[in-house]
Amino acid sequence: MTQSTPRIARRMAGIAQFHVMALLARARELEAQGRSIVHMEIGEPDFPTPQPVVDAGMRAIEHGDVHYMPALGLPELRAAIARYYATRYGLDLDPARVVVTSGSSGALLLALAVVVDAGERVLLADPGYPANRNFVRLLGAEPAGIPVEAATRYQLSADAIARNWDARTAGALLASPSNPTGMLVSFEAMGGIAECVRERGGALIVDEIYHGLTYGAAVRSALELGDDIFVVNSFSKYFNMTGWRLGWLIAPPGCVGELDKLSQNVYLSAPTPSQRAALAAFEPATLAILERRRTEFRARRDFLVPALRAIGFGIEAPPEGAFYVYADSSRLAADSYELSMRLLEEAGVAITPGIDFGEHRAGAHVRFAYTTSLANLQEGVSRIRRFVGAG
Amino acid sequence: MTQSTPRIARRMAGIAQFHVMALLARARELEAQGRSIVHMEIGEPDFPTPQPVVDAGMRAIEHGDVHYMPALGLPELRAAIARYYATRYGLDLDPARVVVTSGSSGALLLALAVVVDAGERVLLADPGYPANRNFVRLLGAEPAGIPVEAATRYQLSADAIARNWDARTAGALLASPSNPTGMLVSFEAMGGIAECVRERGGALIVDEIYHGLTYGAAVRSALELGDDIFVVNSFSKYFNMTGWRLGWLIAPPGCVGELDKLSQNVYLSAPTPSQRAALAAFEPATLAILERRRTEFRARRDFLVPALRAIGFGIEAPPEGAFYVYADSSRLAADSYELSMRLLEEAGVAITPGIDFGEHRAGAHVRFAYTTSLANLQEGVSRIRRFVGAG
Repeated sequence: MTQSTPRIARRMAGIAQFHVMALLARARELEAQGRSIVHMEIGEPDFPTPQPVVDAGMRAIEHGDVHYMPALGLPELRAAIARYYATRYGLDLDPARVVVTSGSSGALLLALAVVVDAGERVLLADPGYPANRNFVRLLGAEPAGIPVEAATRYQLSADAIARNWDARTAGALLASPSNPTGMLVSFEAMGGIAECVRERGGALIVDEIYHGLTYGAAVRSALELGDDIFVVNSFSKYFNMTGWRLGWLIAPPGCVGELDKLSQNVYLSAPTPSQRAALAAFEPATLAILERRRTEFRARRDFLVPALRAIGFGIEAPPEGAFYVYADSSRLAADSYELSMRLLEEAGVAITPGIDFGEHRAGAHVRFAYTTSLANLQEGVSRIRRFVGAG
Repeated sequence: MTQSTPRIARRMAGIAQFHVMALLARARELEAQGRSIVHMEIGEPDFPTPQPVVDAGMRAIEHGDVHYMPALGLPELRAAIARYYATRYGLDLDPARVVVTSGSSGALLLALAVVVDAGERVLLADPGYPANRNFVRLLGAEPAGIPVEAATRYQLSADAIARNWDARTAGALLASPSNPTGMLVSFEAMGGIAECVRERGGALIVDEIYHGLTYGAAVRSALELGDDIFVVNSFSKYFNMTGWRLGWLIAPPGCVGELDKLSQNVYLSAPTPSQRAALAAFEPATLAILERRRTEFRARRDFLVPALRAIGFGIEAPPEGAFYVYADSSRLAADSYELSMRLLEEAGVAITPGIDFGEHRAGAHVRFAYTTSLANLQEGVSRIRRFVGAG
């Protein structure tokens, strides 16, 4: 047997392990030792997949409907997604523009790969979802993180994009609501961003995977701003189908052929049982279940934000969506990674350090996920309060 | 609504639609008109997923076991895959080296991304599986197809790799058995190839997704040749789980951490219902079903090869595995794409033109898939015989 130092591509030096993984592993160790841990680090809804979706998935498997699908997705599912844009957003969408993907991960990679070449730059908010930077690196391109602040709701603006655009820039990727901040880009601001990117001949990709999980007025999709915008969505978060690995992409009409050939090559197709199951995701019975869960998420947010503020965390504006609170921890600790580790070890509360989401003031922030019951959140907050009081 | 010419990355110009897709679409049109088509173009087994796997998948969904998995895969499944290498190949494999992936597509992309940088070259056989070239292009790297001939069983040799290696070469990717040819690399030849790539500091990736579907003496895995080799496998072909999108990668020990962080970012995890279902793939009851199916595939091959030769197709040696026959069609037609289209339109037989697998003498070859019953293959051959006789 030959054991040699393996060849590792240079790109891998730029791609970091999620720090929360080490923290999660340590949490599991502590739990194995009998310690109670309140989990506020997990980006996965605590609700089960809605029963109509479960039933549809089981029927599909039982009937043997588990063959390869067309690369762009099961036609009935593409049509169902298009209809959802009509009922939810009042938008008339051609199902031909709907690409069913292996999670929103698949959608993000496909969209970026179709528009970004090696050596080019993509503008992104810092903090932001870390995988976005790494999709860009995978393509041999460069993620350009633009620092964003609480004052701008942690989102990019047309102005920030214009200032950071250069000849190598291929486009911009935004998320609304954002992970880790839960903040939205207003429809007006998104219009300005679309115009700014369009004028420069770039591509705009908008991640809407936390749509559905918003707690204020009805939210409009970036799709409405032009059919040149790529919109990414997911069955994981709002639809509670994480492990099924299913998402979608709405693409500019002129890109669908490119996405088809790329998807054939890179994925062949998204998982078939998941696609069949997802046909039930838009049924009224399912949507009623999801609406009740959204109300529960809102109640959790409404408890968590003032409770964390009272302990000393800085939260300028309450997050408008997703199931995260991104909080300034600098009044409580000099370094948020150390704070996260100490909260785990000493208080039995797991949260995510800011460093997982970028570089800009990462050491001064942490992310709380409210993907656990209100009772657990109350217990977690009590533990943090005692820890802070004792610190 | 803004309809502008979309920005398309330059890489997309190098990525072609599978030609067989147009042919398949035309076949469906003809079938919709009432024409009978014998399908010998499809790279998907015609057998259903084995019942024990179906049952395990249904149980998982019913129990709500559909959450995110660790990026490297369900630990029990990684252990089961490692045990399979013990029982099938007599190899002692550390489960820590097993990475469960979203199809073998996921395994190929992860392995390449971890070892190949933008601007580098990867050596591949021409003809070969077309997606392999496009994974390399996705990374901003260059696939270097090396022409291979029937005389070398359509496989690369250490000598061919040495001759084509240059300073920009990152490694080589081989498939044994190969798609489209069904040919194996002998264990001795693979040893020479491994040594050649190792001496040059490159990475060797061996696609073994058609292992299990071989029709001669027991086949050894390239894993046996050194733990510096990446071995890709799949639940799609031998295990008849295509739409479930599940595969695996055995990685050099020093690369597993890199694969973990890349997989976290690019895929999050492989589909959970599929991973739970696949736990039943190695059960004796499942393997007994698969062994009966392998015998059926062999009988189809043993019918098809002499029957095609008798019509005038050139098949130097019978394929040793997979479910494909790659045949020289130059005695029957000047161009194999035109032949494929005419066979579809005039004879009602769908096959795949050589152009889908590369450039080298592609117009002189076609691929027959024996993923349909012996009766259908007999009918297909009769139709081709009549077409040739009439031509």
